[in-house]
Amino acid sequence: MSRVAVVGATGAVGRVTLRLLAERGYDDVRAFASARSAGTTLDGGLTVEEATPEALAAGDIDLALFSVGTGASRELVPHAVRGGAAVVDKSAAYRLEPGVPLVVPEVNGARALENDGIVANPNCCTIPLTCVLKPLHDAAGLRAVRVSTYQSVSGAGAHRMEQLRAQPVDDHDLAMDWSWEGDETDEEAKIRAEARKILELPELPISATTVRVPVLVGHAEAVWVELEEPLTPEAAAELLGRAPSVRLVDLPTPAAAAQTDQVLVGRIRRDPAAANGLVLFLACDNLVKGAALNAIQIAELLLQRDRMAA
Amino acid sequence: MSRVAVVGATGAVGRVTLRLLAERGYDDVRAFASARSAGTTLDGGLTVEEATPEALAAGDIDLALFSVGTGASRELVPHAVRGGAAVVDKSAAYRLEPGVPLVVPEVNGARALENDGIVANPNCCTIPLTCVLKPLHDAAGLRAVRVSTYQSVSGAGAHRMEQLRAQPVDDHDLAMDWSWEGDETDEEAKIRAEARKILELPELPISATTVRVPVLVGHAEAVWVELEEPLTPEAAAELLGRAPSVRLVDLPTPAAAAQTDQVLVGRIRRDPAAANGLVLFLACDNLVKGAALNAIQIAELLLQRDRMAA
Repeated sequence: MSRVAVVGATGAVGRVTLRLLAERGYDDVRAFASARSAGTTLDGGLTVEEATPEALAAGDIDLALFSVGTGASRELVPHAVRGGAAVVDKSAAYRLEPGVPLVVPEVNGARALENDGIVANPNCCTIPLTCVLKPLHDAAGLRAVRVSTYQSVSGAGAHRMEQLRAQPVDDHDLAMDWSWEGDETDEEAKIRAEARKILELPELPISATTVRVPVLVGHAEAVWVELEEPLTPEAAAELLGRAPSVRLVDLPTPAAAAQTDQVLVGRIRRDPAAANGLVLFLACDNLVKGAALNAIQIAELLLQRDRMAA
Repeated sequence: MSRVAVVGATGAVGRVTLRLLAERGYDDVRAFASARSAGTTLDGGLTVEEATPEALAAGDIDLALFSVGTGASRELVPHAVRGGAAVVDKSAAYRLEPGVPLVVPEVNGARALENDGIVANPNCCTIPLTCVLKPLHDAAGLRAVRVSTYQSVSGAGAHRMEQLRAQPVDDHDLAMDWSWEGDETDEEAKIRAEARKILELPELPISATTVRVPVLVGHAEAVWVELEEPLTPEAAAELLGRAPSVRLVDLPTPAAAAQTDQVLVGRIRRDPAAANGLVLFLACDNLVKGAALNAIQIAELLLQRDRMAA
């Protein structure tokens, strides 16, 4: 069995990663985090180790799942690669770097094998979006995508969940608590750039508006899709009903998606504003398929390759 | 001074209506509600009267502001009209009826005077949307509109605000708690049909996705607009900055809009998915400009006409 390291083990995504690994029977797992958390014992009994360059480069890790901030990934990931680990990085540090595959296994899983030590895991909104866009593109060709998001606070970290729990409901509000790139949030820029890379459609027009809502877990997205060829809502529903990791439901909501492995899709209907337009709504657990699960699926593609090579 | 009746005085919108009337110096105001609430005393000191057909038809009301359900409006409004009152009805009962003006004063105020006793007040999402669409249409011609909403629970009534206050934050979720008309919520159908009537663009393609978010007060909308002619985001911002009841802000949110009279608009940028496309975000207090204030503004257009005729 592979020796697995979870780096950023005490964060919202790190905790879910450890839980999913345990559920899947991984028993040689180590938990790494910053010096502040080192020495603490986690729910599953693991003692947190400090994520130092030396520890990560020591050569005793086969697979490292990183869920730390972009800055920490830039600093630490190269050491794990140097030590011989295959790295799946969940930050934005390497996603758009040429030569680093950006992978949603159901969409472009084969790309994971074309790596130089690092595979990047996409943004938590990009993953469910591309799971839904890919079958539609294969059937009728994507011409343009518009998406507005309803993102839970857990996407901003475990501390934001505690803040929401502590906040009087009278103060609940919408937010756009991201950095800005010109007239966009960096989240909006990420969705466009990452979806283009994953779908291998570098010119696809994608317009996103990202919004944080006072929900703890689960992201939802209202999506308008313009297609090159006609596709009825019924045909789209049939395609999506057969798509991997996608489940058709009447009404996808964050609560319905929470703790599930799937992207829930529903409300598929015609967009009267476009010739070949469809409207749909999706929801996904941003910590599971939107982050930890997708990274583990990537890791399993890599481990499978190693087993086949061995 | 006119004799004013507020029917549905104990609901979320009715209470705001009474407050706004008091602030504006109306001192001959009566509060009506169902038998269940009759006899109770409201914050401002008014005693609630039962909204019977006889009381409403008695001939001692000049202006009746209705904020009751669609069924109750259908039943009671004709009695107030029979008694000689000018009625502004906030329900969906008469909005699409030919001959009944559907009015946002900043957009089509003159239509209010072409009434046979009833003027309808639009849906709480339609009002801010048309305040923003009208200046854009006048400048560059609307070709298509897509909108996804972030609607607070107060839009569903005061009891839903109490429910949200009582609910653990872990249970907060998105909802689409409207009736269904085919593959749409009736809220989505209302936004399209009402905006077309108000803007006098009966063929305008409008695609809406309506979503309830766990916020108490204030609705927001992510809007994509396709125009006939080019219009830069800067020019659109300048137009909207001069538009009545519209205020340009960096980031419109429900909390920023709450208790204000204005529609907050921001995040105006190009839509890369359309030739002459713009994206924007708006927020509005659904109980104030989205309901009670708009109805009072309509009433004042009617009272002004009466004074000029007297």
